[in-house]
Amino acid sequence: MASYDQSNVFAKILRGELPCHKVYEDERAFAFLDIMPRCPGHTLVIPKAPARNIYDIAPADLAHVHTVAQMIAKAATQVFGADGITIQQFNEPAGGQVVFHLHVHVLPRKDGVPLKPAATFKEEAGVLAEQATRLAAALTAR
Amino acid sequence: MASYDQSNVFAKILRGELPCHKVYEDERAFAFLDIMPRCPGHTLVIPKAPARNIYDIAPADLAHVHTVAQMIAKAATQVFGADGITIQQFNEPAGGQVVFHLHVHVLPRKDGVPLKPAATFKEEAGVLAEQATRLAAALTAR
Repeated sequence: MASYDQSNVFAKILRGELPCHKVYEDERAFAFLDIMPRCPGHTLVIPKAPARNIYDIAPADLAHVHTVAQMIAKAATQVFGADGITIQQFNEPAGGQVVFHLHVHVLPRKDGVPLKPAATFKEEAGVLAEQATRLAAALTAR
Repeated sequence: MASYDQSNVFAKILRGELPCHKVYEDERAFAFLDIMPRCPGHTLVIPKAPARNIYDIAPADLAHVHTVAQMIAKAATQVFGADGITIQQFNEPAGGQVVFHLHVHVLPRKDGVPLKPAATFKEEAGVLAEQATRLAAALTAR
């Protein structure tokens, strides 16, 4: 497996070199909206520590990322009126991974509405900003 | 959301009322092969505590299930010669859930080989038994 590459886009987001629509942050995890959402509220949760994927992340960091994903799943269900949540986490190109900093996809789902194919739709920044504000507020209000 | 139903098939597996191809067990988690695998080595990791899905599972149980999934991902990569791993976890019918005891799918992937559609292929018991034996041995040898 390749080693961690500090130039991946999520590393740049963590370093503040690229903007994002942040929804949550603590000492060990960070969460923001996917700019090419497969459904409204599609959120990515990442560890702050460098980790390419499931093969090299510290177990405690993986555990924490998933507990943050759970908090976001619950808040997003309220904010986006979801009927369910799909969690996905891809490892290496064969596993579906495109950006090589571990990330958990939190996908708020509605009955009968399929996910958009990955990377086919770019949401408007204004829509994402408004959604991030509402989701962050719901997380703060927990 | 509906409450936990003790008659779901994974609860029956945990109680020993239904057989399974077990690959791992500890105080809080249990893992076995999917009998309708979407790829060779398709493994399910579940908490022993009753939990319908991400909405009601205790955060510590969710964290533990995902650290077990990580161990299995690493072992399955060796055993099945995988090039990557896909992790999926479905919540409520809208989120893709069919059995209502929380479960994490660990899917060993090969470059260029798509997943079979869900619930389209039933593997032979002899194949599953041999795969479970090899995966359990790799987990014990960690």
